[in-house]
Amino acid sequence: MPQIQFWFEYASTYSYLSAMRIEDAASAHGIDVVWQPFLLGPIFAAQGWDNSPFNLYPAKGRYMWRDMERLCAERSLPFAKPENFPQNGILASRVTLAIADQTKVGAFVRAVYSAQFAKAEDISDASVISDCLQEADLPTTLISDAKRPDIKQALFAQVEKAQKLDIFGAPSFIANGDLFWGDDRLDQALRACQ
Amino acid sequence: MPQIQFWFEYASTYSYLSAMRIEDAASAHGIDVVWQPFLLGPIFAAQGWDNSPFNLYPAKGRYMWRDMERLCAERSLPFAKPENFPQNGILASRVTLAIADQTKVGAFVRAVYSAQFAKAEDISDASVISDCLQEADLPTTLISDAKRPDIKQALFAQVEKAQKLDIFGAPSFIANGDLFWGDDRLDQALRACQ
Repeated sequence: MPQIQFWFEYASTYSYLSAMRIEDAASAHGIDVVWQPFLLGPIFAAQGWDNSPFNLYPAKGRYMWRDMERLCAERSLPFAKPENFPQNGILASRVTLAIADQTKVGAFVRAVYSAQFAKAEDISDASVISDCLQEADLPTTLISDAKRPDIKQALFAQVEKAQKLDIFGAPSFIANGDLFWGDDRLDQALRACQ
Repeated sequence: MPQIQFWFEYASTYSYLSAMRIEDAASAHGIDVVWQPFLLGPIFAAQGWDNSPFNLYPAKGRYMWRDMERLCAERSLPFAKPENFPQNGILASRVTLAIADQTKVGAFVRAVYSAQFAKAEDISDASVISDCLQEADLPTTLISDAKRPDIKQALFAQVEKAQKLDIFGAPSFIANGDLFWGDDRLDQALRACQ
């Protein structure tokens, strides 16, 4: 089965758009999703940014929120701007990497994005992540698993791998060895897999 | 007739994609194109950038050239990476503003983008712009008209207007009072006009 790598950062608004549709869209084309959580913080820091570009460049930020609102409305996707942006997605990312059953990752990823961008909840809060695990029919003990050194190391390794793949933003897709950036390129990336 | 404002910077690669299709796409929906050349340099400078973000952030730049290559191939649009990037589009912008007959602007705009991104020519060269004027069936005397103080002033005014519209990149569209950014949003902007 062909595969698409989905590189997502939990704090990323545009990753929400892709996270909510990638599993269905890929499966319609007989493509498997490889879930690749990572952190943009270290990648932005290497570019000299200490914050999201949407905060550093206010006009770009104002536009992004308006754009998200319009895109979500077109897709009938609920959207609520969270109070804090960008949120800290380290716990959610580690929990994602601690899930052994790959068939359940999608449901958890969607629950986390929905908590943040549909319900405006704070995903750095362990009780929010606990609810997301329950929604995805996963054990809440994964929250303590996420503190294991091998899981922390796995997240570091994801960031290094993203940098080696020349990833500079999220969402990103690797399809047939090629990099695609942004929810606007998801359909093109799926075509490239075939 | 509803109108779409097309804000373009000649040096912008993604503006090439929109420039080549906007007049046909708008006309198919009974929408008029209002051609709005401007310069990104002063807008980038206000953000602390002294160069194109595609040069300042190398991973983003490598990706953009690959993305352009793929998008142009999909659209059967010729594409050649020019030697210098970003090019100086001041002369081309001033000439655009000097054209009195608005029905001829589109042909000139497409000729300039094709010179730069299909033939890899240097659009700061007056002889290249002269060829573009001839292709668009316009008098080459527009090159000297472009040196008039009122035309220089008109280009300054365009940049100020873009800043007031909160424009931070190109291509940008104003449709029904709303800002849309990027060739990926052209179809959505056209729908918003109706």
